[in-house]
Amino acid sequence: MSEEIGTMPRTKTIELDISKRGFTRILGGPPETVTMKSGANVLYQGESVGRHSTGDREEVIVVLSGRGKFMSIGGEDHEIAKHMVAYCPPNTEHDVVNTGSEPLWFVYIVAKAKV
Amino acid sequence: MSEEIGTMPRTKTIELDISKRGFTRILGGPPETVTMKSGANVLYQGESVGRHSTGDREEVIVVLSGRGKFMSIGGEDHEIAKHMVAYCPPNTEHDVVNTGSEPLWFVYIVAKAKV
Repeated sequence: MSEEIGTMPRTKTIELDISKRGFTRILGGPPETVTMKSGANVLYQGESVGRHSTGDREEVIVVLSGRGKFMSIGGEDHEIAKHMVAYCPPNTEHDVVNTGSEPLWFVYIVAKAKV
Repeated sequence: MSEEIGTMPRTKTIELDISKRGFTRILGGPPETVTMKSGANVLYQGESVGRHSTGDREEVIVVLSGRGKFMSIGGEDHEIAKHMVAYCPPNTEHDVVNTGSEPLWFVYIVAKAKV
């Protein structure tokens, strides 16, 4: 992994590992980025992230393995699986749950949604 | 795939397919999102995206398969491979090239970087 130096965002790469259960930080926000934050999650069978909102940030989820459900509270439920991408608008309470037997592994990216 | 209705961003999912060589649009920007855009690329051996800058947008790349190089023009080169994530700040000319023998398959997400 190469990290930023000083306070200006710089290019960076990180290698993910499905054997790391739970949360892995990828991008922690400023000064590492301008507004973006990113992380990976490995959820085991039946596990969920928990209901939450990313506030004024919009979110993309990229599924690397497994299957589950992406649930917008008060909105639509979506089946998700390996090699699917999900989008969640700002201020949208949602949850992600592993509904399969394999680990559900996904990357999320959030960014401030100013119009 | 479920699409947005009207002009407010809505939750959405899309399934990716490595057999689709080249570019696949995932999120086209407003009104589908607030500022985010996203796409997938399948590059064959030796192929590159071409030098480009995403302007005032910062970018995350999630590699689904293959291996290659993420090159920041005038900056650092990074090896990338399956299950790696790369970050690129705004106004940073860069390129992605497949340096392996398998298809290099990645998702990119860009978002306006206003501070």
